Amino acid sequence: MFLLNSPFGPDEVWDQLPAPVQQTIIERNIELHVIDASSVAREVGMGKRINTIMQACFFALSGVLPRDEAIAQIKKAIEKTYQSKGQDVVEKNFAAVDAALGHLHRVHVPEKVTSDRTLEAAVPEDAPEFVREVTAQMMRGHGDDLPVSKMPIDGTYPSATARFEKSNVSDIVPKWEPDLCIQCGNCSFVCPHSVIRAKFYHESSLEAAPESFPSAEISARGFPETRYSLQVYVEDCTGCNLCVSACPVTAPDDPEKRAINMTEKRPILEQERRNIEFFESLSWNDRATVDFSSVRGAQFLQPLFEFSGACAGCGETPYVRLLSQLFGPRLLVANATGCSSIYGGNLPTTPWSKNDEGSGPAWSNSLFEDNAEFGLGMRIAADHHMTIAKELVTALREEIGYELADHLVHAGQRVGSEIRRQRRRVRLLRTRLEKLTERHENPKATALLSIVDHLVRRSIWLVGGDGWAYDIGSGGLDHVLASGRNVNILVMDTEVYSNTGGQMSKATPLGASAKFASAGKRIGKKDLALQAISSGNVYVAQVAMGANPQQTLLAMREAEEYNGPSLILAYSHCIAHGYDLKDGLRQQKLAVASGYWPLVRYNPALRSAGQKPFVLDSPRPTIPLRDYAYNENRYRVLRKENPEDADAKPQWVSLPVGGLKIAQLQRSSTRRSSKGFIELNSDKLEPKFH
Amino acid sequence: MFLLNSPFGPDEVWDQLPAPVQQTIIERNIELHVIDASSVAREVGMGKRINTIMQACFFALSGVLPRDEAIAQIKKAIEKTYQSKGQDVVEKNFAAVDAALGHLHRVHVPEKVTSDRTLEAAVPEDAPEFVREVTAQMMRGHGDDLPVSKMPIDGTYPSATARFEKSNVSDIVPKWEPDLCIQCGNCSFVCPHSVIRAKFYHESSLEAAPESFPSAEISARGFPETRYSLQVYVEDCTGCNLCVSACPVTAPDDPEKRAINMTEKRPILEQERRNIEFFESLSWNDRATVDFSSVRGAQFLQPLFEFSGACAGCGETPYVRLLSQLFGPRLLVANATGCSSIYGGNLPTTPWSKNDEGSGPAWSNSLFEDNAEFGLGMRIAADHHMTIAKELVTALREEIGYELADHLVHAGQRVGSEIRRQRRRVRLLRTRLEKLTERHENPKATALLSIVDHLVRRSIWLVGGDGWAYDIGSGGLDHVLASGRNVNILVMDTEVYSNTGGQMSKATPLGASAKFASAGKRIGKKDLALQAISSGNVYVAQVAMGANPQQTLLAMREAEEYNGPSLILAYSHCIAHGYDLKDGLRQQKLAVASGYWPLVRYNPALRSAGQKPFVLDSPRPTIPLRDYAYNENRYRVLRKENPEDADAKPQWVSLPVGGLKIAQLQRSSTRRSSKGFIELNSDKLEPKFH
Repeated sequence: MFLLNSPFGPDEVWDQLPAPVQQTIIERNIELHVIDASSVAREVGMGKRINTIMQACFFALSGVLPRDEAIAQIKKAIEKTYQSKGQDVVEKNFAAVDAALGHLHRVHVPEKVTSDRTLEAAVPEDAPEFVREVTAQMMRGHGDDLPVSKMPIDGTYPSATARFEKSNVSDIVPKWEPDLCIQCGNCSFVCPHSVIRAKFYHESSLEAAPESFPSAEISARGFPETRYSLQVYVEDCTGCNLCVSACPVTAPDDPEKRAINMTEKRPILEQERRNIEFFESLSWNDRATVDFSSVRGAQFLQPLFEFSGACAGCGETPYVRLLSQLFGPRLLVANATGCSSIYGGNLPTTPWSKNDEGSGPAWSNSLFEDNAEFGLGMRIAADHHMTIAKELVTALREEIGYELADHLVHAGQRVGSEIRRQRRRVRLLRTRLEKLTERHENPKATALLSIVDHLVRRSIWLVGGDGWAYDIGSGGLDHVLASGRNVNILVMDTEVYSNTGGQMSKATPLGASAKFASAGKRIGKKDLALQAISSGNVYVAQVAMGANPQQTLLAMREAEEYNGPSLILAYSHCIAHGYDLKDGLRQQKLAVASGYWPLVRYNPALRSAGQKPFVLDSPRPTIPLRDYAYNENRYRVLRKENPEDADAKPQWVSLPVGGLKIAQLQRSSTRRSSKGFIELNSDKLEPKFH
Repeated sequence: MFLLNSPFGPDEVWDQLPAPVQQTIIERNIELHVIDASSVAREVGMGKRINTIMQACFFALSGVLPRDEAIAQIKKAIEKTYQSKGQDVVEKNFAAVDAALGHLHRVHVPEKVTSDRTLEAAVPEDAPEFVREVTAQMMRGHGDDLPVSKMPIDGTYPSATARFEKSNVSDIVPKWEPDLCIQCGNCSFVCPHSVIRAKFYHESSLEAAPESFPSAEISARGFPETRYSLQVYVEDCTGCNLCVSACPVTAPDDPEKRAINMTEKRPILEQERRNIEFFESLSWNDRATVDFSSVRGAQFLQPLFEFSGACAGCGETPYVRLLSQLFGPRLLVANATGCSSIYGGNLPTTPWSKNDEGSGPAWSNSLFEDNAEFGLGMRIAADHHMTIAKELVTALREEIGYELADHLVHAGQRVGSEIRRQRRRVRLLRTRLEKLTERHENPKATALLSIVDHLVRRSIWLVGGDGWAYDIGSGGLDHVLASGRNVNILVMDTEVYSNTGGQMSKATPLGASAKFASAGKRIGKKDLALQAISSGNVYVAQVAMGANPQQTLLAMREAEEYNGPSLILAYSHCIAHGYDLKDGLRQQKLAVASGYWPLVRYNPALRSAGQKPFVLDSPRPTIPLRDYAYNENRYRVLRKENPEDADAKPQWVSLPVGGLKIAQLQRSSTRRSSKGFIELNSDKLEPKFH
């Protein structure tokens, strides 16, 4: 018996099946059933959740239990599972069960194969050899048949393979409106799966474009004859809607219409495949011509993290993608265990990618408890490599030229423009070394040639979630911060162990419910930002991409430029928070507006320059905390189950949430210009958690 | 060949040897040499350090190298080892080498045994069986001969055994002056080895006293016919001098004379042995009659940590002793690896002791990295035991009486007086249970009888150094603080890994030199107090016994009473700081006076009572930091080797030391009454480290 979820009804679905599938069904005498579970889910208000519907069909068909008893048991289970999420969720699931059986149809199976469609290839024929021979085998479920000899002998694994795994998980995808678009870059900035990309190019390039390929005049001065295109990779899109909610534009004649809008994928799929093919033939814009200090400019940077297996609407992956865009070709990532290690290294493919020159991030995942140390080791190794390379440059300065050698060894490599100059020098050095080794044997030149890339400063990032940084790996993190070494730490803070199913971490806020804190956490969130700031030599930022993408971008660049440890705490909305993630960006805005998540940057380098190191980037709270918190189920649980505690003034904490303490610190350091911050005085502030 | 360090010269020493030793020397034809190394050390200004002297003698006698070459090599080694400690230290060691050889004498060995002295027994005959049969064997160096059957089968080890190991390491010991003494308790409060003890008693007790036993009228109203005695346990004293420097009294006719003074031990040894025997026959004063909220009162509490193997003048052990005095009979200690795990559990004996009723601390040492978790487990187990005991009390309430049962289960056990009442109830319960089980079989009563002591609240202390709390165990500590459970954490902060030889820890302050930071640490001390305060629900205190013993006492009692996690950071002077520890208390005072180590208490319970939780117990800085720091070699190294750096204003930290940040916090919370604290404003404060 075969139950298929398909948009095609019982009369159409047979003809949609490829011939080998039809053949198997006929040969094995399989009973075929079909349901359009996605439509049912939408109709009963369950969005994309089809699990209850498919479960009802399974029990109806399998005969494990008598049908009526099965349905009764399913409803009992629904009540138990979803009660804490509210009666409306329970009712929707009940409705889904009832609707499921009405939409379940048996399909008439003819006696002969009628289709002339073959199975699509797992990967294109022009994919790299490894992808065709190894990755594709695993994608087909034949990984066990691979001989050991096919495995990379050094444990490394080729990157840039997620692009071969078109998941097609969403029936609806965004569609760009060139005429409405102001080209702000917001949509591609927030996209969790890097499926929205922008390029600008000379208008003559359009001569080869398919008719359907949309473009617009670039909205920037000084770029004559230049067109702009936004391309959606529709087969990789999860339909999360974040791009639409990030769009600042509404059509003059229709307030519901944005410059990017969700639409049915099926009608546009073939056309978009052609568009993507053409879009990929356009060159990525040269980093030197892009002002990527702005969100607008950053959209033109190639993402080297793409099409991951993260949840639709994931709040973490936009930060990871941005990292890859800003520092990708010289990026080394030590990834803590957690969601990011799963979607970051999800066999058989990996979303970490590389550019046309073959350069891209190097990524590895050690253990939960030692990721900070692991990344520190990368820093030490990279520094050592550079030292060796510089010693060889110095030893060969006569052969390669004094001026080049001097610049290679001594030129600054703090900001992007300096890095680009060093890259040019390294290219020049490579050419000269190749000439040197061509003519005569020159062991030093040969040695230097093999490590020449190490002359470009590596950007080391220690990446993970709050379960790592606040909890299991906190001891190591603390130690690495105290090392003074130039590592950058990106904590994607979902305030809960997301990947393992929602257990409380030290980042879980007061009153939020989680596993091991089902009645609402009784202890406040650990103030990791304040702790790092207190050490004095750590760059610290607290960011929320949905609230202020420009500040996020600035913080990442400052962190990277700072010659010492940096820590970025990035607010990451998550399915564990209990609401539809299409509202993720709105919740980020509210988190900041309520004062729960102040946006801050603390830059010790400013002190050396005689300036105040602490900057509060968000305004004083404008809404009460409840207007943020009670949109999320994690907070609603306590109000529902124990309203008295939810309303109570906490006994032992004067401030409802850790974040405000930072603002308080700010108040104390701007005492003389305290306008705007005085409300955060602990003496006057009433806990907002009521 | 046998080299003996002895106060007796070549003509006297033979007759001082016990007969079995003489016998062995004669039989084996041993060449006997003698030196009074302690006198030589004192003469050349090396204090008690005899290592260089003995080494010179060894090389002179052993013939491993020609004598002149050996001496030259020793001096070379001295230069290398002590150079960083200053030229005067090098010179003193040179002088010691030269003087050593002049004082080295060969002893004429007669042909026959002349002594009638036998070897002293390792332990007294009335020692407990285990001590006689096991401990004493190990003390004699015969531990390998012990059969496994003599070992405790459950891994526990009897406490109160250090008292049997009279180390007699010091030739000079303190002597009490009853007529000068104001009975303040300071000397016994600071004694690292618990060798100074006080009792008061009815004057009639003196009838049985030896003539030499000193006493004084007690200096307190309402105690007629009551005498006071201070007893020094001279054989356990290390001669550190801290008691003398803690004494606030000077004689009217002699400003050098205190109410306690160092004197030669030999002349008074026999008399003091008798005095100690009599002193021990006097009962310890009942806790109910002692006001141990004051240092004066605390001297009458029996130390249940005594005669440890810690260094002379140790800055840690006074805190441990105080802990044992205050909470000893119901104390559970989880001890992190470090000095305190060594001197706390130094086979064959242990300084952890017990009172006359056989009650005392239970102590254990797990690993370096998990001590906080280890102690948390003790808390959870103790709570669980109490819950079971209370359930049994409730089930038996008819048999044991409703009122007693009700009080046993519900009475408060926060402070000492409440605990004492509970102890009385438990004694009563025990009597009733014994009666119950005598007459009939009563399984519940039998079960309760076996766990009756668990009805008294246990005091759980997690004890260790900064290497544990700031570094290796910091992740677990952080987690335990966030657990909200009622554990007390005592960090004896020497700001360096003391036990392993002086490696840098995250507690090591800016500019101090240590292993791995030999050119002075470049990163500030981790502000653990601030970090713990930021969590809101942790009782936090920063104390320095030498600066304010009363505040130390108060903090320990408040920490124990607070129903949640508590953290005490205790300034602990240490040989690793590089100065003679007889000045340890003075350095503690200067650390506080310079603002380096502010004394603070943060009590979340005060907030519940509507009061400010933060109290700064020390006044504003009155001396520059250099007047504290440059008395210690750890700081002098940088000034000597890199004066420019020592004078530099740190680049990245506005405040020279972490401690001041706490004071700054205080300033911000007492803004309206900021008198006295405004100097700590970060905008105005110049780094004091110059």
